[in-house]
Amino acid sequence: MGKQAIGVVGLAVMGRNLALNIESRGHAVSVYNRSRTKTDELIAEFPDKKLVPAFTLEEFVESLEKPRRILLMVKAGEPTDATIASLKPLLDKGDILIDGGNTPFTDTIRRNQELAKAGLHFIGTGVSGGEEGALKGPSIMPGGPRDAYDLVAPILTEIAAKAPDGEPCVAYMGPDGAGHFVKMVHNGIEYGDMQLIAESYAVLKQVVGLSNEELGKVYTEWNQGELDSYLIEITSKIFSKKDDETGKDLVDVILDRAAQKGTGKWTSQNALDLGAPLPLITEAVFARVLSSLKDQRVAASKVLEGPQAKPLGGGRDAFIESVRRALYFSKVISYAQGFAQLRAASQEYKWDLDFGTIAKIFRAGCIIRARFLQKITDAYTHDKAIANLLLDPYFRDIAKNYQSALREVVVAAINAGVPVPAFASAIAYFDAYRSERLPANLVQAQRDFFGAHTFERTDKPGSFHANWS
Amino acid sequence: MGKQAIGVVGLAVMGRNLALNIESRGHAVSVYNRSRTKTDELIAEFPDKKLVPAFTLEEFVESLEKPRRILLMVKAGEPTDATIASLKPLLDKGDILIDGGNTPFTDTIRRNQELAKAGLHFIGTGVSGGEEGALKGPSIMPGGPRDAYDLVAPILTEIAAKAPDGEPCVAYMGPDGAGHFVKMVHNGIEYGDMQLIAESYAVLKQVVGLSNEELGKVYTEWNQGELDSYLIEITSKIFSKKDDETGKDLVDVILDRAAQKGTGKWTSQNALDLGAPLPLITEAVFARVLSSLKDQRVAASKVLEGPQAKPLGGGRDAFIESVRRALYFSKVISYAQGFAQLRAASQEYKWDLDFGTIAKIFRAGCIIRARFLQKITDAYTHDKAIANLLLDPYFRDIAKNYQSALREVVVAAINAGVPVPAFASAIAYFDAYRSERLPANLVQAQRDFFGAHTFERTDKPGSFHANWS
Repeated sequence: MGKQAIGVVGLAVMGRNLALNIESRGHAVSVYNRSRTKTDELIAEFPDKKLVPAFTLEEFVESLEKPRRILLMVKAGEPTDATIASLKPLLDKGDILIDGGNTPFTDTIRRNQELAKAGLHFIGTGVSGGEEGALKGPSIMPGGPRDAYDLVAPILTEIAAKAPDGEPCVAYMGPDGAGHFVKMVHNGIEYGDMQLIAESYAVLKQVVGLSNEELGKVYTEWNQGELDSYLIEITSKIFSKKDDETGKDLVDVILDRAAQKGTGKWTSQNALDLGAPLPLITEAVFARVLSSLKDQRVAASKVLEGPQAKPLGGGRDAFIESVRRALYFSKVISYAQGFAQLRAASQEYKWDLDFGTIAKIFRAGCIIRARFLQKITDAYTHDKAIANLLLDPYFRDIAKNYQSALREVVVAAINAGVPVPAFASAIAYFDAYRSERLPANLVQAQRDFFGAHTFERTDKPGSFHANWS
Repeated sequence: MGKQAIGVVGLAVMGRNLALNIESRGHAVSVYNRSRTKTDELIAEFPDKKLVPAFTLEEFVESLEKPRRILLMVKAGEPTDATIASLKPLLDKGDILIDGGNTPFTDTIRRNQELAKAGLHFIGTGVSGGEEGALKGPSIMPGGPRDAYDLVAPILTEIAAKAPDGEPCVAYMGPDGAGHFVKMVHNGIEYGDMQLIAESYAVLKQVVGLSNEELGKVYTEWNQGELDSYLIEITSKIFSKKDDETGKDLVDVILDRAAQKGTGKWTSQNALDLGAPLPLITEAVFARVLSSLKDQRVAASKVLEGPQAKPLGGGRDAFIESVRRALYFSKVISYAQGFAQLRAASQEYKWDLDFGTIAKIFRAGCIIRARFLQKITDAYTHDKAIANLLLDPYFRDIAKNYQSALREVVVAAINAGVPVPAFASAIAYFDAYRSERLPANLVQAQRDFFGAHTFERTDKPGSFHANWS
């Protein structure tokens, strides 16, 4: 029996679907799981597929061509370290471990260094697209040693999603933690997108008074234009879904407590470390946290009054269009912040990230896939070194034409007592970013006053301290 | 020659001023610095004071009464660890190390555990008030073993600031890292306060058109009322300060790039870890970061247009009063978030923090000292377990009476293109916190749609998954 070109360790849903995806491209795949039940189930379910089960790691390693390509799809953290430790003595120099889990990029940097000492290659790769993406074609963000990547690139390219122009959604991101970092920021952006859509829903429902049916139509229509994206598409479908049990619209039956798995939080914490302003995504993370405090909110709603909702002035359709523009422009601002974080990270960690390519591989397979990502790729094609996407001509035009809509929507929401933390943060960021002068001079004066922290001057370089008292 | 009751290691400005403060209360103080120059300078400057120099750690340790009380005022991080490592073999069981540096609370937890094994006590204490506070009376936030605290409490009580009612601004915060944690949140709150004042300045200057002289008068007046606080007081003084070199108003000569030392960032990162919504302070941290991107902002200001400033509708004085109310209510919201973070931390780290006492010891000595802190103490006296300060009757009244002013000011700023990220975040938090229903149901629907992450229902407990396609 011949040996396999690749094997998968960890057969939970993501691992098994990736194995099936690889198999579907014509490769036999070795599969291993710590408890053999999952392996047995997989083989029983797909007896005709070229899945080669192994029941010990020795057997698994033995079944692979050299240099071995091993895709780890085990739980991030301790379980990944344990699996690596078990595999390490069985491997030969030049073998390649690929971690496709939801791993913090700092762990990936550490594992890269540790395994390099043993002559092993470690590729940390983001995989986005959920269960279905894993099976049919995810967006793949690999980072690690370039020469090792080249040895796994053919298979990754085959299994990746294909963008509308046919290009596979996989590309080499950069050394060590670059792949998992890009995936982390992808997820942070996903938090921002989802919160912005949720705020547009709140405004359309509470300020305009749209029904679920009308909401479904609005999002369906929006999905035909600039906002064309997977998240808008599924949003449009959500509003027509009925609850099997009660017959009500399911969206109204779902409890308003948003959960999270931590990648949004990581993105915000890293932005704080890098000194890269990421207020919109961070507001989105905090919005989820606040939503989870349901009991407190219910209690507060009984004692903290807000404004009376006022009837909408002006045309309803015109306002709905304003919400669409507010959503699109806020999305632009969110991506401008996310890509500025990637830029800061690329400098800090010396990754030489290619931002245009990153936007490109987000175009299909992943949760944030959207037509507008092409505009980001275009912006970086124009000017690889652009400091912020808002400075690109296309996005400048969006800013020019849509900012009044964003202002209008935030103002209407605030006057109606509807919380729009991400929309409001978007316009504040935009106005701050385009401010030649911010009131931070007062902050510096205060710091020098109470702590002698010194200040800079507008008229000459250097550090200065005033005698304030 | 007798031995001293306390010694100070580290004679940079904070250490030497604390030593002088202790000495001024009638205690002889042993002093030591790694390089002897600072020690010599201190003794030369104050030959008549009861400062007892030591030039080796052995000599220093030998000069102290047992159990020894050693105040470490060295740089946080490695230098603190190095100093502790050098001292450790010279000490006896029961001796007490007090770290008064700007130390992350996680380091303090670690050192507590390590030193406890050697029978040594470690007290991590926040010290706020800057150079002057250290000399004349800071606000002091000690955490560590209770019995060890009792042995240093008399001296800490003597050197602490005194509140207007005469109470010393020091109290036992809780075990291990509690003191440094409270200091960290104090600093985060300070970032929020400073950003809110900066935004009020931007609105008064750019929307109302006040001159520096008028600004000085406004803040002086505000300092007579509810906003009475150290930061408002120094703000009022800043506007009348002239630049020695140019004769211009100094505030206009100071560059608008706000610096930071990281404690605001820590506070936000910890809030994200705890799942405690802290959007306002986090916006303040990001506002400083964004201000530091001066070159980008100057470039952006030339290509990103905003709205034309409109003349202020209605009365100028009425709008100035609205800004005052917006500032006060936003401040209330910021403290509600900060104290909710303390509450979450107290549960997570099992500290049993006393929130009323914390507000009490902030009343003097520290940077955020303010009349309104008494209202927080009162709120916790009423209801020790209150989930959020906004639910307290006094703060509910502020919310009721001042929210329209906050809405008005945010709306005016957004329409004028003036960034007010913290004000806008404040009203968004308020409206979200008092929302029985948030649009997070849509977020949960999306998560279940694309990732089978399940959702809860409004009508019964449990986790549910829908077949969306």
